[in-house]
Amino acid sequence: MAKIAVLGYGTVGSGVVEVIKTNSAVVNKKAGEPIEVKYVLDLREFPGDPVQDILTHDFNDILNDDEVSVVVEVMGGTKPAYDFVKASLEKGKSVCTSNKALVAAHGSELLRIAKENNVNFLFEASVGGGIPIIRPLNKSITCDNIEEITGILNGTTNYMLTKMVNEGLEYDDVLKDAQARGYAERDPSADVEGWDTCRKIAILASIATGKEVSFEDISTEGITKISKRDMDYIKKLGMAVKLFATAKFEGEKVWARVAPAVVAPEHPLSFVSDVFNAILVKGDMLGDVMFYGKGAGKLPTASAVVSDIVDAVMHKNINLGISWSEEKQKLEDVKTMKVSKFVRLAYNDKAKALFAVKTGFGDCEITELDGVSGEFAFVTDVYAEGSLDKKLAELENSEGVSEIINTIRLY
Amino acid sequence: MAKIAVLGYGTVGSGVVEVIKTNSAVVNKKAGEPIEVKYVLDLREFPGDPVQDILTHDFNDILNDDEVSVVVEVMGGTKPAYDFVKASLEKGKSVCTSNKALVAAHGSELLRIAKENNVNFLFEASVGGGIPIIRPLNKSITCDNIEEITGILNGTTNYMLTKMVNEGLEYDDVLKDAQARGYAERDPSADVEGWDTCRKIAILASIATGKEVSFEDISTEGITKISKRDMDYIKKLGMAVKLFATAKFEGEKVWARVAPAVVAPEHPLSFVSDVFNAILVKGDMLGDVMFYGKGAGKLPTASAVVSDIVDAVMHKNINLGISWSEEKQKLEDVKTMKVSKFVRLAYNDKAKALFAVKTGFGDCEITELDGVSGEFAFVTDVYAEGSLDKKLAELENSEGVSEIINTIRLY
Repeated sequence: MAKIAVLGYGTVGSGVVEVIKTNSAVVNKKAGEPIEVKYVLDLREFPGDPVQDILTHDFNDILNDDEVSVVVEVMGGTKPAYDFVKASLEKGKSVCTSNKALVAAHGSELLRIAKENNVNFLFEASVGGGIPIIRPLNKSITCDNIEEITGILNGTTNYMLTKMVNEGLEYDDVLKDAQARGYAERDPSADVEGWDTCRKIAILASIATGKEVSFEDISTEGITKISKRDMDYIKKLGMAVKLFATAKFEGEKVWARVAPAVVAPEHPLSFVSDVFNAILVKGDMLGDVMFYGKGAGKLPTASAVVSDIVDAVMHKNINLGISWSEEKQKLEDVKTMKVSKFVRLAYNDKAKALFAVKTGFGDCEITELDGVSGEFAFVTDVYAEGSLDKKLAELENSEGVSEIINTIRLY
Repeated sequence: MAKIAVLGYGTVGSGVVEVIKTNSAVVNKKAGEPIEVKYVLDLREFPGDPVQDILTHDFNDILNDDEVSVVVEVMGGTKPAYDFVKASLEKGKSVCTSNKALVAAHGSELLRIAKENNVNFLFEASVGGGIPIIRPLNKSITCDNIEEITGILNGTTNYMLTKMVNEGLEYDDVLKDAQARGYAERDPSADVEGWDTCRKIAILASIATGKEVSFEDISTEGITKISKRDMDYIKKLGMAVKLFATAKFEGEKVWARVAPAVVAPEHPLSFVSDVFNAILVKGDMLGDVMFYGKGAGKLPTASAVVSDIVDAVMHKNINLGISWSEEKQKLEDVKTMKVSKFVRLAYNDKAKALFAVKTGFGDCEITELDGVSGEFAFVTDVYAEGSLDKKLAELENSEGVSEIINTIRLY
């Protein structure tokens, strides 16, 4: 009998209790012994809910109970999660978490403490919700030099972008819709500014490099500047827009960025719609592999957490050897990455503006929208982003050009 | 230092040697010790190839060398692979294989022998080539009741179907093209008749049920009956055709089938084109997750084999607990599965034929091709396949109907 404690009885926490209860037959068989939730920690009361019988408001009840071998942290945030997780590991309890903020901020230290105490710190659910990605990166893709990881890691923004393009809506309207459905928070910044995505790619890049990739170092751009009109052009070009998190690896060099990307329909990530997430991993031997599924939601996320609990129960006092060092991975300047850009340009003299585009960028195909005058769009060739931006600044100062309205990188 | 032997220096075998050599830094780090290929077994000579120095023609050199802790079987077929693998396991050597025929025919026995000898029998590359699927099914999706596994598991047929629909070609022409490119064998039966796919879904279904699903019991239909004209209709309907392997699980009941399927464009498997493979797994908690990548090819397949070698080296004398029992899993009659079908029908009296369709199937949408007379197509509602086939037989005998030219199940 393995006894566990669940910290936090919110969406994921109640999902974890539900999965363990509903699927006890399969869970216990895989774990090799029955798993029992001995405590749930929450500040609230849940009158009428069976959880009330095992509810505690005091973390010390859990910490000081030697019967508890696995602590499940699904509170979110770093305070008090960090203190609780660190104390649990130091007491020789394995910890399973879905908390990307915690893993991105303190992963290397917590992995080290787990190793020192011969227990495990597991976080499959912290990236991609239910999608198996952490374990495959650690245990399956073990003989490749990883060249790139690119993912759609935030369901809320992917839902919004899908709705904008499918229904021809403005950003503000789809945001309201996403909030009404409970996909976006009242303060949607963490999603729409790319901060959530940024933490997730920091975790994946840390696994890939074996060093600490700090989320603060990752160039991060959200989806707030994308308009219905941008979408109209991109739709006409037969492309899609996704919020991409990308990390590229070349020897010791690492680039990482979160930003909207225009994607061609042939690309496997282009079809990933609505709240689905997907992660593409490119290995030097393996080529492209992709992992796809529900990136959020109570039961899918809980399923990933419980798979970690099973692993922790199967490996009591055996550290699984998953870690990245506390050495910091330097990131290269993203302006040295090679990109092409979708460019939307307003003109006061079309012939002169076209001439300026041709002078700067050669024979680009020009796209115009029916019924829209005074502007057009084109797609540049590939340049180092720094040089490309210089060329675009020159273009913006050219005769006939009023302004560059927006640019979005092509993937 | 872990010493291994590679049985067979064909495409995959030479890929395994190449991956271990090229990526020795990452492989050795993950394995925790250097991996050295001590022997390659092949009946042929390879003058000028460095492998010549470690080549042997006698399996006993490997079997009797106690230094060899891992044997890599990449010869294909069951003879002599089965004898070599069994003998290796009995001698306390772990075995890694890409050989689906071997795993489908003898998996349960070989897993048992591995367990008895405290070693491992690993076969990540036997399904989906480089795609991590065996390990995720065993180690990640551990707290779900799996409700369904559906995959595109054969790159050759997927390439052919993609080319038929994209280029409007006949089956015979794309087969010739696939043979010219080396995707299809001179005798293409194993691919085009679905036999290769059938062995792979048998392996996945065995993992999911924990019992032996015999490939001989799986209803298997290939792609040979699909014509350019069928494709024209399906394209007009905005759908795709894929060779699907499907296993469905409901309590103790299991259905399994390999057959072409008409797929709607919203389905994540519909975009899987060319030689790519993908496997969709539906869990009762997880929902749909999908694994996508190169299902074949020298280096992707070798990468999966080497990830097994790394696992075997990391778990010397520790059985990983992966097994299915030798108890046979009974399969349900596929005629009890619920399906709808795409139906192509030739008529001698259109009005009467339409009336017969309406009588039998209600108000179906009728699709006709420009410039094609004497036939139309429609899609039925969902029925148990046995009843549907009876209704279709009645339709074929109705006044006005000449014959049912072809039917393809919808997914």
